[in-house]
Amino acid sequence: MSLVLHGYFRSSAAYRVRIALNLKGLGYESLSVHLRAGEQDAPGYLALNPQGLVPALIDGGQTITQSLAILEYLDEAYPDTHRLLPEAPLERARVRALAAVVCCDIHPIGNLRVLNYIQGPLGQDEAAMIAWYNHWIRRGFGALEAMLTANAGTGRFCHGDAPGLADACLVPQVFNAQRHALDLSPYPTIERIWKACEALEVFAVAHPSRQPDAQ
Amino acid sequence: MSLVLHGYFRSSAAYRVRIALNLKGLGYESLSVHLRAGEQDAPGYLALNPQGLVPALIDGGQTITQSLAILEYLDEAYPDTHRLLPEAPLERARVRALAAVVCCDIHPIGNLRVLNYIQGPLGQDEAAMIAWYNHWIRRGFGALEAMLTANAGTGRFCHGDAPGLADACLVPQVFNAQRHALDLSPYPTIERIWKACEALEVFAVAHPSRQPDAQ
Repeated sequence: MSLVLHGYFRSSAAYRVRIALNLKGLGYESLSVHLRAGEQDAPGYLALNPQGLVPALIDGGQTITQSLAILEYLDEAYPDTHRLLPEAPLERARVRALAAVVCCDIHPIGNLRVLNYIQGPLGQDEAAMIAWYNHWIRRGFGALEAMLTANAGTGRFCHGDAPGLADACLVPQVFNAQRHALDLSPYPTIERIWKACEALEVFAVAHPSRQPDAQ
Repeated sequence: MSLVLHGYFRSSAAYRVRIALNLKGLGYESLSVHLRAGEQDAPGYLALNPQGLVPALIDGGQTITQSLAILEYLDEAYPDTHRLLPEAPLERARVRALAAVVCCDIHPIGNLRVLNYIQGPLGQDEAAMIAWYNHWIRRGFGALEAMLTANAGTGRFCHGDAPGLADACLVPQVFNAQRHALDLSPYPTIERIWKACEALEVFAVAHPSRQPDAQ
């Protein structure tokens, strides 16, 4: 087994994959793609991932892109380690829906390339950009909080008492929320789960500040 | 079995689920949530889906939200009908990555609520809104086209010669691209696959224009 992760310390999607790899106890080599320097648009990286986004995971010479696809892959290709998803179809659907609120409906709208468009072609100032960024997190966190509190499946973590796929997506989004000082107090369940995750070493070592390329 | 789909004729995410249900040969009752009239924010619907988005699928009294989670659920809960995903983990990862380009990195950025924010709080005119909308489709379609042409797994459809999960996501996005007359000629593989899908009755009857709530 030889896993290589092309990522960036502050990329939320790469952070998800670091958490998942750690949860499953899979060692990996970390390669940095410097997003602010535009390394994701270099021909060599585009040959690996035509989207020009991180992360990309290499497993035995095969490239896998898109963080959600990578998380699912890790659970299917390495089924004998800690499971990121529960067994029953309805429970799996719940975990995937929680993850999708973050990965589809919050994160892409606040991604670096989108913020660049807001400030570039749309000519918005930094205050408008931050308002935009936090608006979509609040919309998503409001829904997530309701989904977590209204469901008996929620435990110490997003689903049950073991961390999994939804937690691997939630924690990096809370990190993002803190970048522009979003008030977490309207989301006590999210905050509780985030703290439970942060207390675990597997989450702590995946934190952006702990990565070799952190600035 | 009793499946009920809360959707809206023009919702790209609901359209995905209609295609998947048809591909799997699963009958369902269709209930319309009128997005332009704001029915997604009515308390009754929010109790079903706190996100206030369509689709929501009800299966035997249980609610499942988020289109990608619904598609995965259908394949797991009804494994004996047409499979939306291949068997091998690496192939499944490829299909999920193709789907995620659409569902994470194109569609949410051009969703109705985002366009409303662009024209409302950000004060942009319709031309700027359409430029935004088409910009993210072009970025995503450019990557998708590269991912499809560079990979031997692509067949008559996104993966192999049977339609599946990635096609169910791609076709509604091509429909969206046509709303503001995006030129498809730079994406010949996407166009070819889209036409192959449209020629199938299971895709045709899922088209927005064929829904009871079409206007």
